[in-house]
Amino acid sequence: MDATDTLSLTEHSHVTFPQGMVLDCGVALRRMDVAFRTYGALNEARSNAVLICHALTGDQYVAETHPFTGKPGWWDQVVGPGRPVDTNRFFVICANVLGGCMGSTGPRSARDNVTPPAPWGTDFPPVTIRDMVRAQKMLIDDLGIGRLFAVIGGSMGGMQVLQWAVDFPDAVFAAIPVATAAYHSAQNIAFHEVGRQAVFSDPDWYEGRYWERAKIPARGLAVARMVAHITYLSEQALTRKFGRRLQGAAKGSSAAIGMFGDMFEVESYLRHQGSTFVHRFDANSYLTITRAMDFFDLVTDHGGDLTAAFQGTKTRFCLVSFTSDWLFPTAGSRAIARALNRAAANVSFVEIPSDKGHDAFLLEEPDFHRMLAGFLGGCAEHAGLT
Amino acid sequence: MDATDTLSLTEHSHVTFPQGMVLDCGVALRRMDVAFRTYGALNEARSNAVLICHALTGDQYVAETHPFTGKPGWWDQVVGPGRPVDTNRFFVICANVLGGCMGSTGPRSARDNVTPPAPWGTDFPPVTIRDMVRAQKMLIDDLGIGRLFAVIGGSMGGMQVLQWAVDFPDAVFAAIPVATAAYHSAQNIAFHEVGRQAVFSDPDWYEGRYWERAKIPARGLAVARMVAHITYLSEQALTRKFGRRLQGAAKGSSAAIGMFGDMFEVESYLRHQGSTFVHRFDANSYLTITRAMDFFDLVTDHGGDLTAAFQGTKTRFCLVSFTSDWLFPTAGSRAIARALNRAAANVSFVEIPSDKGHDAFLLEEPDFHRMLAGFLGGCAEHAGLT
Repeated sequence: MDATDTLSLTEHSHVTFPQGMVLDCGVALRRMDVAFRTYGALNEARSNAVLICHALTGDQYVAETHPFTGKPGWWDQVVGPGRPVDTNRFFVICANVLGGCMGSTGPRSARDNVTPPAPWGTDFPPVTIRDMVRAQKMLIDDLGIGRLFAVIGGSMGGMQVLQWAVDFPDAVFAAIPVATAAYHSAQNIAFHEVGRQAVFSDPDWYEGRYWERAKIPARGLAVARMVAHITYLSEQALTRKFGRRLQGAAKGSSAAIGMFGDMFEVESYLRHQGSTFVHRFDANSYLTITRAMDFFDLVTDHGGDLTAAFQGTKTRFCLVSFTSDWLFPTAGSRAIARALNRAAANVSFVEIPSDKGHDAFLLEEPDFHRMLAGFLGGCAEHAGLT
Repeated sequence: MDATDTLSLTEHSHVTFPQGMVLDCGVALRRMDVAFRTYGALNEARSNAVLICHALTGDQYVAETHPFTGKPGWWDQVVGPGRPVDTNRFFVICANVLGGCMGSTGPRSARDNVTPPAPWGTDFPPVTIRDMVRAQKMLIDDLGIGRLFAVIGGSMGGMQVLQWAVDFPDAVFAAIPVATAAYHSAQNIAFHEVGRQAVFSDPDWYEGRYWERAKIPARGLAVARMVAHITYLSEQALTRKFGRRLQGAAKGSSAAIGMFGDMFEVESYLRHQGSTFVHRFDANSYLTITRAMDFFDLVTDHGGDLTAAFQGTKTRFCLVSFTSDWLFPTAGSRAIARALNRAAANVSFVEIPSDKGHDAFLLEEPDFHRMLAGFLGGCAEHAGLT
């Protein structure tokens, strides 16, 4: 990546808002790009739009081959013709989050009013989940959609779903927050902080101005990704996938201990996860987005009472958690369900048995997918969608 | 730290074995130092010796002010006059593990047959938990002790307790493995690997020859310590200690998001934990010892049957786990208890209710301490200790 590269990201489909946006931190972005993809067709009544919100390291390429990695869309099993989020029926939209690195305004974008053009880098202002959602709202308005039939997302995507329901209740008919929480826990903040420190420790970090040297803090970012990846999996999933199997020469009993080149399979897998990640994700975006998650706290935002956040809502909620998810455990979803019930909201809550950990929401989980299709079908009936 | 420093560690009380030891990896150490501390007095029958085995980042300074950090001994609440491991009654020994950095032979020790003298560094051969225990056995023999009244340790210390009971059953009257397991799990190996990669990523790592440049890979080692520290605490402990409290200016709602200088209290705590650690611990030792833990697997060592490891044992076992310990969960101790029962061994197993996570074994836990005192008292009676 060189400095030119960091500015040549406009090949992603996007809309530019020349008026920009004032962020929660007080900084006014002078202009703002929101990159997005759509699948299916908007009906005449403009009533069949489903917004998908992506997670920390996701992007807008939900249900198509990714232009950079060549891999299938990250929710290919969920979104598509005949899939739970059926693109024969729904018009699906997914936008790259503000602060991201796939075409929406973020640390790799050109800084306002700087000649010659240069990226923001670490000077990119901090964004909140609320900022991300307001940028998406501008996109939805621009597309001429008054009300979204549904907003769906897992993990940080689920935080956005909740924020949508809180900030724009009349624009959300149904909300499906998956594997998420109303605030980021102390443990999750701690894991993010470790990742950030790993990036800061990389000799190629250069105080965040790595793009000036045509470098990326690859080792630090890989370590950040590795630690995050462990938190996405359950102990059971790790054990099933790798157990204590060794690769290379060092097999047999513990007496066969090798040098550091000999690895357990889980080590080699993590190194691979770390090293592939750094080529598709910008370190400054990673810092910006983890920070947004850390600061997410709908409870404090509403004077310590989550119920107040949802007072009077007409949105139909379906909360989903997974039994083996220790990053966003069921207790977090249950707390949201309780607050919604106290607000007399329309709420379902399903805990899906799975041993795949937090990642379950991205993987083949037939129970989850059936539930999703069923809930959307029921809501479509109530909304009078044919 | 300069190269001279790394060789001047002989101020720790130690015994030198000029015959050295052949390690499990096949490398013969030409000489071997074992640094150790003792508390209390050995009785005439030499029957009141208690060996304490320390954990990953512990050392031999169990029950006295640490000569480097000036802090109280790491098990000051457990070992001492009138404490659960009562030094008025028992002769307590603790040795720095082989591969450590507090005076026992390890990566900071002078390499065999090299002129001018230079430390081993990353060329220090890999060691196993079994190697550590054999070095301790040589120390115990040297002290003229035929049988230890008890061997006690938590975490990696517990692994050593188990290895003692397996390799030298007649030399161990009572064994107390605390918060440990018969093998290191895939998840735990994964967390260790992240820590190692963080060290390798540090610009001051210099392929492990940092001492030649008078450097330490402080940032990488701090990141390793930070991730490990999170795993030592429970989510409840982190929340109770820090919650989502901010320090500095950025207080109030999530809209008050600050720049990266503004921190949650948990971040500041972790940074402190990381930065103090690097001054008392050697990076190469950290790599060596984490590797030893990763390779620990008593099940595989015994053809997949842990029961075989303990066949015919006369040792009295007391296994201890803590409810909120997710690094070494109760299931691991229960598996050992089952294997011991199948071997018709004398075994107690206590799960202590605690919300302090893995660290509980090092903290004020009155139930644990009462249990320890009670079990040792009962065993002392059986052993005919007055």
